[in-house]
Amino acid sequence: MIITLLTDFGDFYHGVMKGVILKINPKATIVDISHSVEPQNILQGAFLLYNAYRFFPNAVHIAVVDPGVGSGRKALAFECRNHMFIAPDNGIAYPSASEDGIEGVWLIDVKKTSEITGVLSNTFHGRDVFAPAGAYASIGLIKEVAEPYEGEITRLELFNYKIEKNRLLCKVVFVDRFGNVITNVRSNDVRGRYVLFERMKIPIVSCYEDVGKGEPLALIGSFDTLELSIREGSFAEQFGIESNMELELELY
Amino acid sequence: MIITLLTDFGDFYHGVMKGVILKINPKATIVDISHSVEPQNILQGAFLLYNAYRFFPNAVHIAVVDPGVGSGRKALAFECRNHMFIAPDNGIAYPSASEDGIEGVWLIDVKKTSEITGVLSNTFHGRDVFAPAGAYASIGLIKEVAEPYEGEITRLELFNYKIEKNRLLCKVVFVDRFGNVITNVRSNDVRGRYVLFERMKIPIVSCYEDVGKGEPLALIGSFDTLELSIREGSFAEQFGIESNMELELELY
Amino acid sequence: MIITLLTDFGDFYHGVMKGVILKINPKATIVDISHSVEPQNILQGAFLLYNAYRFFPNAVHIAVVDPGVGSGRKALAFECRNHMFIAPDNGIAYPSASEDGIEGVWLIDVKKTSEITGVLSNTFHGRDVFAPAGAYASIGLIKEVAEPYEGEITRLELFNYKIEKNRLLCKVVFVDRFGNVITNVRSNDVRGRYVLFERMKIPIVSCYEDVGKGEPLALIGSFDTLELSIREGSFAEQFGIESNMELELELY
Repeated sequence: MIITLLTDFGDFYHGVMKGVILKINPKATIVDISHSVEPQNILQGAFLLYNAYRFFPNAVHIAVVDPGVGSGRKALAFECRNHMFIAPDNGIAYPSASEDGIEGVWLIDVKKTSEITGVLSNTFHGRDVFAPAGAYASIGLIKEVAEPYEGEITRLELFNYKIEKNRLLCKVVFVDRFGNVITNVRSNDVRGRYVLFERMKIPIVSCYEDVGKGEPLALIGSFDTLELSIREGSFAEQFGIESNMELELELY
Repeated sequence: MIITLLTDFGDFYHGVMKGVILKINPKATIVDISHSVEPQNILQGAFLLYNAYRFFPNAVHIAVVDPGVGSGRKALAFECRNHMFIAPDNGIAYPSASEDGIEGVWLIDVKKTSEITGVLSNTFHGRDVFAPAGAYASIGLIKEVAEPYEGEITRLELFNYKIEKNRLLCKVVFVDRFGNVITNVRSNDVRGRYVLFERMKIPIVSCYEDVGKGEPLALIGSFDTLELSIREGSFAEQFGIESNMELELELY
Repeated sequence: MIITLLTDFGDFYHGVMKGVILKINPKATIVDISHSVEPQNILQGAFLLYNAYRFFPNAVHIAVVDPGVGSGRKALAFECRNHMFIAPDNGIAYPSASEDGIEGVWLIDVKKTSEITGVLSNTFHGRDVFAPAGAYASIGLIKEVAEPYEGEITRLELFNYKIEKNRLLCKVVFVDRFGNVITNVRSNDVRGRYVLFERMKIPIVSCYEDVGKGEPLALIGSFDTLELSIREGSFAEQFGIESNMELELELY
């Protein structure tokens, strides 16, 4: 069974999670989706998970961006039509789980998972809670470390931008390594030939080579949302744009 | 079958490629060679692939540094004596494929690969074209997504530096994490006891400990080319050297 | 068999090591613990390995932070009760190996390993020595590339901080991506309600949410040592703290 990991942990911590998983399920195929989610940025984690999980065969996806670690927030397992999602109850797994079709929710028992690993920290539930729960889920034994849950869950909406006539008030959900600025505006809300951004007319094109080197462009990127780019340059750097910013755009 | 990945994608995108691959070939062993190739630097990608592939057992190598993505550039599969290379037709796989011995070239059919994944973006052919083609190649079915190709291919030369008497005009092909400056000058063109660089005499030695801490040195590194280093320091930082720069050196 | 890798190599080089390993043991499950150990920081490598290996099932751990590469330093394999450690003789594997219980030490024969790979550089023993040795260890054949060793080995102490009454003179062993400052002070030496650091009273709490956003805190982190943090901020950045620094703290 495939187990994917998506966290904001950066380096090292994910390696420990893999040890925990392999101790429980030595046959797991573990795949890193990302460990570079912007620290504490739950929306970004949710957006990236949503755009990754659907390309996997049936899998267990462990997603941990978890500013509330060690407090009372719940740890959940979403059993869905094709996939299983293991995550803190802060909405990070919600868009993916609800798209796939939630068939049951489990409340992970932190005492049981930490008995398995032999430790329970207040800072690293990736190791002490989510990794063992994901590993048990991958062998069909989530019930060993969790119980059915019927209470409230935290919902999170990825695409709640505002449209008023030509104006778009949206969010930067991801800036990739090339400095492409990925917004949460879905392709079916993008029309016209230009994006107006800070009084600059940016042509909406279909690929980078449609403009000259160093020129700005807008296109529907691989997330099926509006992206702002500079051909062979960095839009993010040139215009000082970072993840989580609100953007005001106009479409013409 | 082993499938390796080498891209300039940084984080996240390679995780999605792995999902696509595992959906087609759940038994693939996927290995990351690098996702930190300098953005758009085809020469660096080619150099790193060339220095990695030969250490692998027979494998499928997917190499994507692809400034022309979404335009008309071809997507190719090189069937070689021991390895298979899947890459855009911009030369990135050429030095490796030609060294291994090209036995056949396939033209990947973007329509067929994107039917498999269900998407075709103009910006992420790693996911929509190269990952599915590599996965099919790994199960011996490249013909399902490609057809034999007899046309021109883009060639790229890694070692085209100039030598005039003692002068070397070469290129920085890689700067590693330690600030070692890796040039494309092959060991058999390196002779003498000193490298003259910006009027500085740098001794050619055989290991870092041959000079004092903080002192510069030149040696034949693990790429079998000339490297410039500072023992327990960063040559690149100290002298402002970056990937892709031309260097003028003299050997004495 | 699981083979883990921990190095200060950053990108690319570990990919080549995996090729070497898979050529010898195609069934190895290779797990990256970290490749971002601070360059040349043996103590940090030792600390991270110590905090990772115990969460793995029986495995071969290859740990390479190796400022003495190419000089005469020995390459060793520690056969322990449950795990095997492959590393340069600079102490990096010592805390882990001795905790697990050393049952035998092997001296790796560089000539034999490099005959296997076909290369012997003076700069990349990760590829030419440690990867092949680890791969042979993983198939139970370490004796093919090493011989029993009864000589001296380099010892390294992780927890040699000083305590004088309320004063602690300790070390920053790791700064993680969140800017958490991880010290080497073990939990059983941490008492009281406050840490005094540069005249600032930092409360010792049990989780991040025990203080307000942006406020400093101290806690026993997932390494079971004292950590200094800022809730949803970076302690390291705010106070200019880096790995390997000595810290003077007082506990009240």
